[in-house]
Order: sequence, then C-alpha cells, then structure tokens
Amino acid sequence: MNMKPAGTLVLTRRDVAALLTIDDCTSAVERAFKMHGEGKTQPPGVLGVHAADGGFHIKAGILDLDRPYFAAKVNANFPQNSTRFGLPLIQGVIVLCDADNGYPLAVMDSIEITIQRTGAATAVAARYLARPDSQTLTICGCGNQGRVSFRALHNLFPFKEVFAFDLDHAQAKTFASDLSGETTAKVIPTLELEEAIQRSDVIVTCTPAKQFFLKEAWVRPGTFIAAVGADSEEKQELEPTLLSRGKVVVDILEQAATIGELHHSIDRGLMTKNDVRGELGEIVAGRKSGRSSPDEVVIFDSTGMALQDVIVAAAVYEKAVSSGLGQLIHFGG
Amino acid sequence: MNMKPAGTLVLTRRDVAALLTIDDCTSAVERAFKMHGEGKTQPPGVLGVHAADGGFHIKAGILDLDRPYFAAKVNANFPQNSTRFGLPLIQGVIVLCDADNGYPLAVMDSIEITIQRTGAATAVAARYLARPDSQTLTICGCGNQGRVSFRALHNLFPFKEVFAFDLDHAQAKTFASDLSGETTAKVIPTLELEEAIQRSDVIVTCTPAKQFFLKEAWVRPGTFIAAVGADSEEKQELEPTLLSRGKVVVDILEQAATIGELHHSIDRGLMTKNDVRGELGEIVAGRKSGRSSPDEVVIFDSTGMALQDVIVAAAVYEKAVSSGLGQLIHFGG
Repeated sequence: MNMKPAGTLVLTRRDVAALLTIDDCTSAVERAFKMHGEGKTQPPGVLGVHAADGGFHIKAGILDLDRPYFAAKVNANFPQNSTRFGLPLIQGVIVLCDADNGYPLAVMDSIEITIQRTGAATAVAARYLARPDSQTLTICGCGNQGRVSFRALHNLFPFKEVFAFDLDHAQAKTFASDLSGETTAKVIPTLELEEAIQRSDVIVTCTPAKQFFLKEAWVRPGTFIAAVGADSEEKQELEPTLLSRGKVVVDILEQAATIGELHHSIDRGLMTKNDVRGELGEIVAGRKSGRSSPDEVVIFDSTGMALQDVIVAAAVYEKAVSSGLGQLIHFGG
Repeated sequence: MNMKPAGTLVLTRRDVAALLTIDDCTSAVERAFKMHGEGKTQPPGVLGVHAADGGFHIKAGILDLDRPYFAAKVNANFPQNSTRFGLPLIQGVIVLCDADNGYPLAVMDSIEITIQRTGAATAVAARYLARPDSQTLTICGCGNQGRVSFRALHNLFPFKEVFAFDLDHAQAKTFASDLSGETTAKVIPTLELEEAIQRSDVIVTCTPAKQFFLKEAWVRPGTFIAAVGADSEEKQELEPTLLSRGKVVVDILEQAATIGELHHSIDRGLMTKNDVRGELGEIVAGRKSGRSSPDEVVIFDSTGMALQDVIVAAAVYEKAVSSGLGQLIHFGG
C-alpha cells in the first residue's frame, strides 16, 4: 500500500556507511543481476556531460522490488580534485523515488553505495566464475575499491594468501596492515606484480590506469579476473589479448563494448560482441553457463550498472526508515 | 576562486519560491538562450525512464556563468497522481554542482523552477516574436503554468484584455479573480475559446492536452503563440497546419522535432526541420531574425531546455547563499 510520504529522507555518507554491510549489499546486487538476467527489468539509462576538468555521469533505472523504486545517481568525476581542491575524485548523490508515483523518497550520498555495489558485483561474479577452491587473491589498486573488493570476497573463498599491489607501495602496506586482522589469510604488500599474478587464482583490478598493466603471459590457467577499473573509454587495465584468450562475462554488454575493457579488444579486432560468453545476470539467472572447466581464464568486465545503484539505494532507504536514521526534508513544502 | 565548500544547501519549494522572481528568472533564461545561440554551450543531455503509471525525465547541462555550474534535474511525471495519491503531477529535485570540481552545491525542489523557467522562456520568446503593440492575450490552461505565463508577460505588453480559458471553468474564474489585482488589463474567464483566439495578439497554450484544440482557422494574422504544453510525443495543443502556415521558432530543434508540437507537423509530412526559422537562442543572439512582418503568425515551440534549469538553479543558489536561506548538509561527512 502506498501512503502519502512523510517527507524526503536525506542521508549522508556516514549514514549510508552505518546502514550498509557488504554482505547485504552483495545479496542485493545478486538479486538485481538475477532480475536483469531474467528479463524482468527495463534497460537502465546513462547520460554523460563533459566538464573542463572532469565530467558528470548519470545512471538511472527502475526495479520492481517489494515495491517499485526508481533511482538516479548523479556522480561527478574530477581526476585532479585531490591535488587541486582537496576534494574526492568522485562525489555525488542518489535520488531515490517511489516508482508508483514519483515521490522523492530519499536523497543520499552516492560514494559509499558506488564503492560497495561495485565490490558486491565483483563478489557475485567471483561466486559464479571463480574456482571454489581458489587460494590466492591479488588486489591491484589498494584504495577504497580494493578494500571493499577484499571484504566482499574473503569470506567466499578459502584464501591463504592475499597480495596487495599499488604503484604507491605505502598504500599497499597500509592496506595489508589494516586488513590483516579481518582475515585468516596472509595479506602481503608486494612490488612484484608479475610473481603475484602468476600465483593467483582470483585477481581484482581496480586502479585508475589508462594503459594496461596486467599481462596475458602472467595469468595462469583457471584464474578469475574481475576488471573493475575501466569504466570509461580511456581507461584500461588488462592486455587486450588476455580477454580474447579467456572467457569474457560482462555486466551490460553494450556498456562494456563501449567503455569497458572489452572495447579495447574490440577496437583491436581481437573480439566482437558475439565472443562474449554473456552478461552476469544471465549466468546468475541460470540462462547461460558460467565457468565450464577449471582451466579456463574467466574475466568479468565490470562497468557499473544503474540497477546496482537502484537496489542498494532502496535497501539503504528501507533500513534508514526502520532504524530512524537520516533527516526528513519536505521539499514540496 | 574556489574555496572548499561548507556543505550542500538543501532548498525546499518554499525556499525557492521565496528567492525567485519571475523577472529575475526571465533575465536569467534570456541569458541562457543567448549563450546557447552564440554557441557558447555544449548540447545538454536528456534521459527518460518509463514507469508503469508515468515516467522520470532527467535533464542535465553545464553553463559557464560567473563560475561554471552543472545541474541535473530529476523530474517525475505521473498524470494520475492527484486522484490516486493526492500528490502533484510533477515532482522532482535539481542537483546543482560546481562544474570546476563536481561538488554538489545544492539539492533543491524542482517544481517552482520548472514552472518559472518555462514561463520565462515564453516571455523571452514573446519579447522577440510578438508584436510590441499586442493588446489581447489568451491563456489556455489556468494552472500554475498559466499563472506564471501571465505574470511573465503582462508587464511586457500593453495588454487591455486577457482571456482565461480552461476546460474546468471554475479554474478560469479563480485565475481571473486572483490575477485581476496584478494588472491594469481586464482578466476575463471565458468558455468561448474560438472568439478569444480570434481577438488575440498573444496566445499561450499550457494544457496537458493530447489532441489539438487550437485551430488554424481561428488564428488571425500577426498573432504570436507560445506552445508550452507539448513536451512529450503524445501531447498536442495546436492544429498541425497552424505550424506550417506560420513561422516556427523552437527552443531546441532536435527536441521539438521529437517531442514538441513540431513533431506532429513533421509526422504528417507538413514540415521538415528545415522549415523551422531557428532556435530562440539564435534569435536572441542576433544570428537569425525574429518576426519579419506584423502579419506573420509566429509560433514558439517550447519543450524545455536543460540550460534553463541550470541558469535558474544557479541564480537561486547564489541568492540563497547571500541571504542565508536553506539548510546545509554535509553529504560526504
């Protein structure tokens, strides 16, 4: 039943972080992928606006959950923000609405949700595409996304070693010391990326790299790679031949073919969209098979799907309402 | 100079209404059209998402004003809201950001800005396209947009008579009694649309009509018509032959050809995009001529331009900052 809403809930990043656990987030994101794979969603929309030193990206979509929700995420991406303004690289808000009547239910900070829903997609993909007996993980890029990826993954696999790699080695060391207490695995900061990759069963790349650094020759059979960093045309982390050698699963085919790792392999004539095994949602929904042998290299090309934002924003909102967190604003008043 | 911002200003509809005058709004909107016409803007973006009983529309753009601003407007449009939920037909928020670094400067209710910036565009168009000696005005549709259109126009022309027409005649009567005190003109509620149109120099159509009601034969030479209602494929207010007989000016050509009155005339094979005299911005910027004779029927096809929202949201924000209105939220905090 729809009641006339009491107002719009304003939730800060701190509120969102207090309400969201990575495991809840992973369950929610898996559900969104499943609905997408079952054809129960309409195609989400994206819109980009270029600015002088960065850009704005809007992702919007609707999901029919226990009630129908619409969310639009407005994210700003300004690469030089830290040095120029002391501001984060990515900033933004999500507007969550009741999709029955359009009422703006909440306006919330987008950063925590963006980071966590991305880590959650990595975990969902790994659950379906990595070898269950995976023992070694390498995280490339030890920022927030690296941390969340680790937290989303470490309970899913019997990891014994986790390599932490970052061009800024101090970051890798901090990562290792911060996260060692959260896992029984050994977390090892490393400068020897080639060696770490050669020993890894699961690899997450979540850097801002614009030239690939993960070489095909380093990757052993059976590895699962979540390629998370590339979410715009000019970003790239994986050698293009690595994708054509392995099996590629994407979050959204059109998007991956335009702004993901996939587009570099297509540009070089190494692959076409037909060479992609499928969308993650199709695999979660059981419409396509995931890993077909323990020797396959499987790559998940993660570009970010609006429906991830919708479902996680809805979960945060519902938790905020039931726990009384956030501030109520009467926008129309 | 950019300073690290103190927070994000949250502005309700009441705040926005207190800060915005239609005359300031008209000046701001004229500036946005001029910049657009001078080629000093990049094409704004639009994105639509369908819902079961309505839809969501996002308009986003950047303007280099005294400082660069980005705004994204997220509007919900649910036609049965009033009867089903006791909620407004249109609801939404505008996210205003610093386009130098992406910081979300403000989140504000969008309704007042949507209504006023639309009325302001009507006024700008009328100033360039209506006969300066226009004496009779007809407003078709006596809701909020009708009121704002009247307020935006009545100081610009020596109107003696204003006809107020609405299918709901009680609305027309309330309109007349409410607005009579604001003008020296006689405000007359009428059921005789044909007669009113035949006597009019300026006509504003701002109804939710899906079939045209303004007939070509009723319109006398020299009339200016602002066609405001049609902003989606299925809406229509003007007989298509009226556009092909007159001179058509649009806010954005691509948009008018897709969702404005223009698209009905194109669909019927009566016009092509090449028959359009130009965009309002080109006329404001002096790149194209407006009215070329006192006998021309000139039609402004108004579909709503993201840059109108950007410039008005920026003006509201600057006024809010200087007057201390609104509530500061630390989204990232």
